[in-house]
Amino acid sequence: MEANSVIAVDIGGTKILGAKFDQKGRIEAREKKGTKTRKGDEAAFRQLTRVIDQLWTEEGSPVQAISIGVPGVVRDGVVVFAPNMPWKEYPLQKKIQEHYGVRCFVDNDANLSMLGEWRYGAGKNCQNLIGIFVGTGVGGGIVLNNQIYQGATGGAGEVGHIIVSSDGPYCGCGARGCLESLTSKNAIQKEIIAQTKRGRKSVYTDLIETDQFILKSSMLKRALEEKDMLTVDIMERVSQYLGIGTASIVNLLDPEIVIFGGGIMEAVGPYLLPKIITHAQSYAILRIMEKVKIELSALKDDACLYGAYALALMGES
Amino acid sequence: MEANSVIAVDIGGTKILGAKFDQKGRIEAREKKGTKTRKGDEAAFRQLTRVIDQLWTEEGSPVQAISIGVPGVVRDGVVVFAPNMPWKEYPLQKKIQEHYGVRCFVDNDANLSMLGEWRYGAGKNCQNLIGIFVGTGVGGGIVLNNQIYQGATGGAGEVGHIIVSSDGPYCGCGARGCLESLTSKNAIQKEIIAQTKRGRKSVYTDLIETDQFILKSSMLKRALEEKDMLTVDIMERVSQYLGIGTASIVNLLDPEIVIFGGGIMEAVGPYLLPKIITHAQSYAILRIMEKVKIELSALKDDACLYGAYALALMGES
Repeated sequence: MEANSVIAVDIGGTKILGAKFDQKGRIEAREKKGTKTRKGDEAAFRQLTRVIDQLWTEEGSPVQAISIGVPGVVRDGVVVFAPNMPWKEYPLQKKIQEHYGVRCFVDNDANLSMLGEWRYGAGKNCQNLIGIFVGTGVGGGIVLNNQIYQGATGGAGEVGHIIVSSDGPYCGCGARGCLESLTSKNAIQKEIIAQTKRGRKSVYTDLIETDQFILKSSMLKRALEEKDMLTVDIMERVSQYLGIGTASIVNLLDPEIVIFGGGIMEAVGPYLLPKIITHAQSYAILRIMEKVKIELSALKDDACLYGAYALALMGES
Repeated sequence: MEANSVIAVDIGGTKILGAKFDQKGRIEAREKKGTKTRKGDEAAFRQLTRVIDQLWTEEGSPVQAISIGVPGVVRDGVVVFAPNMPWKEYPLQKKIQEHYGVRCFVDNDANLSMLGEWRYGAGKNCQNLIGIFVGTGVGGGIVLNNQIYQGATGGAGEVGHIIVSSDGPYCGCGARGCLESLTSKNAIQKEIIAQTKRGRKSVYTDLIETDQFILKSSMLKRALEEKDMLTVDIMERVSQYLGIGTASIVNLLDPEIVIFGGGIMEAVGPYLLPKIITHAQSYAILRIMEKVKIELSALKDDACLYGAYALALMGES
């Protein structure tokens, strides 16, 4: 790509992060707004353009491309389906290109976070890596033999939907007992509410009684600092399931590194990671496991932005 | 490779199968002997040479190469470890080359069965396929993007050791609740004995009371024909676990086809496969699952022999 700027955007269920990358791949400006998911698809699009407009008018070299990560299934620039967004079969790439007159790239946010960690983060110089992103849901991605692995029909990499407990809860994916149904922020919130309703006291009790309880990752961090036993217990199970999922993946794919990212890991990763590793070791084949690095995301909340930037570079080169 | 013959050998825990492939890849002679695993590593080697000698002296074109599948971990022609064989760090490739004066190829039997199915069997023309071989243990292999996937350290493809039940029995791999610990012939045998000892009657009762019970796959077939309820119950669970394992693999890797082979599948595959598919469908993401073929091995007991033949062709070309 020529030496121009790229606007990268990470659309999440609650917030839109944007960044303008300069010619040397440094972030020279940032923008952040709420996602506005409840007012229909065009309102969500307008909110996205507000973030881009803000970055577009920043000083610096002209914008060459816009690259966007979306929390859903993306095919050929079209957002096929995004569980926490109003878009359905929404031609996002085309609309952005028409609106701004520059090339646009769109991909799934977990894929892009994976790409970011691989090119610029914890997976730099690795040829086989797995990303597990634990947030509102559990996403992920797979790089094998130095390529993003897409599978036969482009559906591969559903790391969040490997089964870790055959009798586990049902999941939005239609199955039950998958990683997402047991370890996502949504799953943790459900478990906190269920335990509270059956009478268990915790730091969340008062909040739940007001019926306005929406779990934020930062609450988990505070609860652990306060040694809230409900949180400790739930985190123990979460780490066990993440360890079991890691073990299955390691036995199957023998990667160089497994990278944990996402909102939950960013908030309580240093607490969870050693536990995840311990459980993974007790479920994986040791001769494979002992060679695998298991690390936290290096780029943290910026992983998707860096991945979007990398995607634009790949697409323009 | 020049137009000469290849001797292919499949060493199993109980029997050694050999075949001589002619210049056109047809099997022109076969040989079969017991494995003799109990008399030390040299006795096992001599038994192997008896099979090869028999094929070597068959009429037809001269032998160009010998290619061998071994039920264990193989690295650079050395049998590092084989749970049901006396060989440990055994330089099989070198010994066969010295003994016969032709090139020898050695690989893991499940890998070769996978290679056979890919090149000549149910996975012909597929670029992404998974093999699950259910026999004494559970082996398997992975072909991704038209290449045997080895992983970062050569340990990949341990399909038998993905976790399907976090509280399942311990396995020889050191972990618990993996496919092998729940669905292998050894696992089924243990379950039959345990159920019998707690008083459950079945077609195996008399045999178990003599303390000489060694389960053969053919017994399962007969027991199902006789509608033995213990066998029906155990096979239901086996198919559920195989379905869950299949679902995890499908969600993660989105292959074109999953191929089931091995002794158990050869004996009762037509009974098990529809059940496995039903369970896989209830645990996998349907938009991925509906595009994946799930089939029985086409080459059956010959899969490893054809894979060994393919390995020799690849090595000599």
